[in-house]
Amino acid sequence: MKLATLKNGTRDGTLVVVSRDLGTFQSAGAIAPTLQFALDNWDATAPKLEQLYAELNAGKAPAAQAFVETACHSPLPRAYQWADGSAYINHVELVRKARNVEVPASFYTDPLMYQGGSDSFIGPYDPIYALSEEWGIDLEAEVAVVTGDVAMGADAALCAAAVRLVMLVNDVSLRNLIPGELLKGFGFFQSKAASAFSPVAVTPDELGGAWQDSKLCLPLNVTLNGRPFGKPNAGEDMTFNFAQLIAHAAKTRELAAGTIIGSGTVSNKQGNLHGSSIENGGVGYCCLAEVRMYETIENGKPATSFLKFGDSVRIEMHDDAGASIFGAIDQRVALYEGRK
Amino acid sequence: MKLATLKNGTRDGTLVVVSRDLGTFQSAGAIAPTLQFALDNWDATAPKLEQLYAELNAGKAPAAQAFVETACHSPLPRAYQWADGSAYINHVELVRKARNVEVPASFYTDPLMYQGGSDSFIGPYDPIYALSEEWGIDLEAEVAVVTGDVAMGADAALCAAAVRLVMLVNDVSLRNLIPGELLKGFGFFQSKAASAFSPVAVTPDELGGAWQDSKLCLPLNVTLNGRPFGKPNAGEDMTFNFAQLIAHAAKTRELAAGTIIGSGTVSNKQGNLHGSSIENGGVGYCCLAEVRMYETIENGKPATSFLKFGDSVRIEMHDDAGASIFGAIDQRVALYEGRK
Repeated sequence: MKLATLKNGTRDGTLVVVSRDLGTFQSAGAIAPTLQFALDNWDATAPKLEQLYAELNAGKAPAAQAFVETACHSPLPRAYQWADGSAYINHVELVRKARNVEVPASFYTDPLMYQGGSDSFIGPYDPIYALSEEWGIDLEAEVAVVTGDVAMGADAALCAAAVRLVMLVNDVSLRNLIPGELLKGFGFFQSKAASAFSPVAVTPDELGGAWQDSKLCLPLNVTLNGRPFGKPNAGEDMTFNFAQLIAHAAKTRELAAGTIIGSGTVSNKQGNLHGSSIENGGVGYCCLAEVRMYETIENGKPATSFLKFGDSVRIEMHDDAGASIFGAIDQRVALYEGRK
Repeated sequence: MKLATLKNGTRDGTLVVVSRDLGTFQSAGAIAPTLQFALDNWDATAPKLEQLYAELNAGKAPAAQAFVETACHSPLPRAYQWADGSAYINHVELVRKARNVEVPASFYTDPLMYQGGSDSFIGPYDPIYALSEEWGIDLEAEVAVVTGDVAMGADAALCAAAVRLVMLVNDVSLRNLIPGELLKGFGFFQSKAASAFSPVAVTPDELGGAWQDSKLCLPLNVTLNGRPFGKPNAGEDMTFNFAQLIAHAAKTRELAAGTIIGSGTVSNKQGNLHGSSIENGGVGYCCLAEVRMYETIENGKPATSFLKFGDSVRIEMHDDAGASIFGAIDQRVALYEGRK
């Protein structure tokens, strides 16, 4: 099934069920007022939400309305946990190659993961607010899953079964703040701005054959200022699948329902700079940092700039028939001018 | 006023107002079902909670009952953000000295802070569960504040005014997992177990003269297996106060109401190993790592072991008259045997 959260002036929005073709929705308020409530009580709520979804797809939902992506918040406008992996090691290899340092052998067996801020996500059509372009604003197009409750030390099989929902994410990074922050040794904090998630979150069964081995095997389409920028396949070159990422997160503590686990920037292994861009036949990129790494490796320094105020980013994924699965994340970078 | 969350079988518990002397409580359910709800709607809920608190202290609350700390969950059993600073630079200086490396000059002007897991805190009297003693289980006794909404880029004065509640925390760390995790560069993740907070959270006005310049100026009492272990003053040697820590967290993103900001392990500057323990006239320690650092600096290697299954930790703070302000965090280390 497909679920979304409509903005309604509250911090958590209101849960709706969305039709498979993203054409209509119906309020799920009688079953669960919010997505977090649905996840907190999944065994009780999921069957009822599935039934409503079936009715909606059959054109039999009693109060269906036209679905408008721009009315959506992120499916979880705020969450109790957002932990982002870095499962596409190609991205890490490029980072390291640009810095002329080796990738530690352990990186191929032990996932990288950071704890992200989850108190105030932004909506999929909300501006990416920043106080300065000098922060080095970058997109990171990723896939993310929402889990149910997971026991400490759960193995990968249990973790695979704990995936409740799948969605897309733009994990906005402030690249120029990263080197200083990593030097301090405590990981990312100020270098990560608020993330935005796709309008629609879907259950794994909805993805059919595209959900294999806890990976989402479809191209992730990224557009920058209206031009194709990336289309790598999220199922390829993923060194750690979502089951492994969840197991990593749960190694020393329980995970509560509604935990979001991200894949890290999707990145496919490719040839060189000029062969990797979409206009030259490559699959392109899911972040600007990756172009800049190719440029650094081949030309000694980066040439592509990070995002400026007014720049726009669109992230979307389509099924084999060309239909949008999750709706789009479509954002413009803007100067922050105070709390809305 | 003083607030607490009683366990009631739900994920968020139920909000109660607690009398100043921790003797009685009354349900706040008619005002706010949970502490997060109260924080989400603070301007509306706080005056009503204050009124109930006044009635309770005057012995006029209509349904007061005896308050029992062991019935409490952490004030926020789960939160949307838990960011922990490392504001007592003495602790960092000892860490570095034990490793024979300099403290970077920037550490005195730019706070260290990591993003912690906040999806499932444990209660103040709950066991500290782990799967292995080999993880190097350690306590970290700290002070923490809960904020209201904070704008991106808010200055320290605005951040000082955003402090809604103050509480104590045991930020359990898995010391033997830290070196490997820090080498990976993404900060702490598996090396941080679930934290526990004091039974009671209090508004800053409740602390009177002990709340000065966004610092809590009282000794933090730590007992290990029933013996005094630490009593450093949390108002001394705090290089960054809570207003500065909140401003650090809000530099590039908004903070939502209910954000918890921690001080890091409380640590006072002292003499050497034998002068620093309580039995030798010092103020002792708020974590085992600090004893081990003194031992390493003076004897070349640590001698004190981390916590074992069955060990107990108690963290509490008293006012000038000797009364417990927040109630106690009182935990025993135990083998994890599955979700409760």
